[in-house]
Amino acid sequence: MSAFEQICRLSAAKSNTFPVIRADLLAGPGKVALMNFIGDRPAMVFASPTVSRIFGDELRDLAMQLRSWNNELITIQTTEQNKTLQTVEAILTKAQSRYFGRNGVFIGVGGGVLLDIVGLAAGLFRRGVAQVRIGTTLLAQVDAAIGIKSGVNVGKAKNLAGLFSPPELVVTDGRFLSTLPQRHIRCGLAEMIKLALVRDEALFTAIETDGHQLLLESRNSETSQRLVDQAIRGMIGELEPNAYETELQRVVDFGHTISPRLESDTNFQLHHGEAVAIDLVYFCIVGQVLGMLKQDAVLRIVALLDRLGIPRWHELLANLDFIASALDAAQAHRGGQLHLPIPTRIGAAQFVSDRRNLTGIVLKEASEIGRVL
Amino acid sequence: MSAFEQICRLSAAKSNTFPVIRADLLAGPGKVALMNFIGDRPAMVFASPTVSRIFGDELRDLAMQLRSWNNELITIQTTEQNKTLQTVEAILTKAQSRYFGRNGVFIGVGGGVLLDIVGLAAGLFRRGVAQVRIGTTLLAQVDAAIGIKSGVNVGKAKNLAGLFSPPELVVTDGRFLSTLPQRHIRCGLAEMIKLALVRDEALFTAIETDGHQLLLESRNSETSQRLVDQAIRGMIGELEPNAYETELQRVVDFGHTISPRLESDTNFQLHHGEAVAIDLVYFCIVGQVLGMLKQDAVLRIVALLDRLGIPRWHELLANLDFIASALDAAQAHRGGQLHLPIPTRIGAAQFVSDRRNLTGIVLKEASEIGRVL
Repeated sequence: MSAFEQICRLSAAKSNTFPVIRADLLAGPGKVALMNFIGDRPAMVFASPTVSRIFGDELRDLAMQLRSWNNELITIQTTEQNKTLQTVEAILTKAQSRYFGRNGVFIGVGGGVLLDIVGLAAGLFRRGVAQVRIGTTLLAQVDAAIGIKSGVNVGKAKNLAGLFSPPELVVTDGRFLSTLPQRHIRCGLAEMIKLALVRDEALFTAIETDGHQLLLESRNSETSQRLVDQAIRGMIGELEPNAYETELQRVVDFGHTISPRLESDTNFQLHHGEAVAIDLVYFCIVGQVLGMLKQDAVLRIVALLDRLGIPRWHELLANLDFIASALDAAQAHRGGQLHLPIPTRIGAAQFVSDRRNLTGIVLKEASEIGRVL
Repeated sequence: MSAFEQICRLSAAKSNTFPVIRADLLAGPGKVALMNFIGDRPAMVFASPTVSRIFGDELRDLAMQLRSWNNELITIQTTEQNKTLQTVEAILTKAQSRYFGRNGVFIGVGGGVLLDIVGLAAGLFRRGVAQVRIGTTLLAQVDAAIGIKSGVNVGKAKNLAGLFSPPELVVTDGRFLSTLPQRHIRCGLAEMIKLALVRDEALFTAIETDGHQLLLESRNSETSQRLVDQAIRGMIGELEPNAYETELQRVVDFGHTISPRLESDTNFQLHHGEAVAIDLVYFCIVGQVLGMLKQDAVLRIVALLDRLGIPRWHELLANLDFIASALDAAQAHRGGQLHLPIPTRIGAAQFVSDRRNLTGIVLKEASEIGRVL
């Protein structure tokens, strides 16, 4: 059996572009599969400080066993403030100092920020080398790791410099979740709820039933992992037909309209998943005000977020100038049209593309409802 | 007739991916074609300091007439030392400060360095916006403008951070050549000679007959422009089947094996075309030593370079450690194999892929021949 067949046998979900495997990365079949996959190509392993601290010995052991020119684990600072072209440049310099060639592979092990940085570095080094994405947070596993996007911030502008660059392989290992703070799990759950709202009522119901297991109980249990796999499959299904975003109407943009500004304007005190949750609730309420979404659905969504302890309101939303300016930024990013996804029920969404539908009165009413809800 | 048909009617050469038009950019049909091509998309015009100084008023006029949000001409410093991710970041910041969206177009007007920087910025801005490449040096017109590569230097490593990102349109205007210093023309001729050596004997003969016209006489004459067009067509023909360099054996890499190190180790005192000429002569002599290329051919090549005043020797080539280390770097860049193109006659080349064929004795003998030739 070839290395690739071995890997595919392990796959929990599979994209057309790259295999996504669920496996114990640090021992057993996952490690063997990864090593076979890399083969005799030079590889560098990059990890976030937290991952290095907790799993450093095991990852160094993995790096040693790769037939790599660099038996080291390279730690990258992964604050949003450090997610810059300067950090990318430092990675390129390091790789070049090792005579790292075009046949090399960058292996990123960490959360979304780490994968975004390493992905961009891989896409730029010698005009592109292969990358393997290994998400260690729930958010990364259901979102950043399986996308093909990478990017870094420029000043306050999130992900302004980036690429579409597909990984060669994605590895998901539930064991990484076991050491995550609850706040990180909540962020991942927020992204899963977003996905459920726009395309998958069954996933929403599953989160209502089992989401607390990820938060409180055994995160690597069969139930928890089934939930994660369901979210991964849903996300791949949503992303693949439009991986390069030639179609600018994307339901997965739900929750990502004003959230970039929520993150940057709070100086990244709000984490990505928290900003997504606040954004998605606000635009559900906008949908309610516009008569697109029933109040029952809004209340059911809010109840789930509350039960899981996910924040859903921020005082910035009381400032209509903030909302207008954040909408301007989203509109520019989406090519001049707003393309705002709004759920019409739990599991389906429609687009509001014309900014004029979002009058000051609508936005204000939504803010007022959101503040007291 | 549609704008695109108008453009294609003007085409001097055409790639499958993007139209290449020869037209007077600053007035007449070229300007109209460009404006129709951009349509109502926002556009930013970037130029090198020299281009801004000489053609600034006309380019500002062009920028004004584009239905652009930014009626300004943006000047970018274009030394090799300034070809960095920091410069790319400054462009991204500028574009973002103008609410420049995904439907925007970056128009680069300048030499290879400017096009490399602007091309990378376009490839990264919001994960990629359209670019138009307008080469103003001979080297850019026959090479940088019609490729799909962009990149910036990282430390001393040339183009270490880069992308393959095809332009939407390439415009070639002979008028830009009229103000070029002879040194720049020589650099362009060196790149044309390189192309001729590996694939096109007729182009080589044409340069022998008419190359001096580009250097000394009317650069925008019909003869000169025919020569430029011939080189553009040849380069497109060579690049297109392997635009993304999935095949690492590329005859166009001829002249680009140790030239990156020649440039950086002289602190860019040697210009790109000069380094290419020095590199190509050295490896012609290596071919002679290996019995792959006849001495007659080497002498004919050297005679042409001398007649055009193009340098073909640098003292660094007497240093075998320099050559070995430059070969290491080229080998890393080409994925671990050397893939060294060597002409077997004027107009054809073969690859030396195994580094072991280039023994110290061979390299030393070539250096000695080169020094006294």
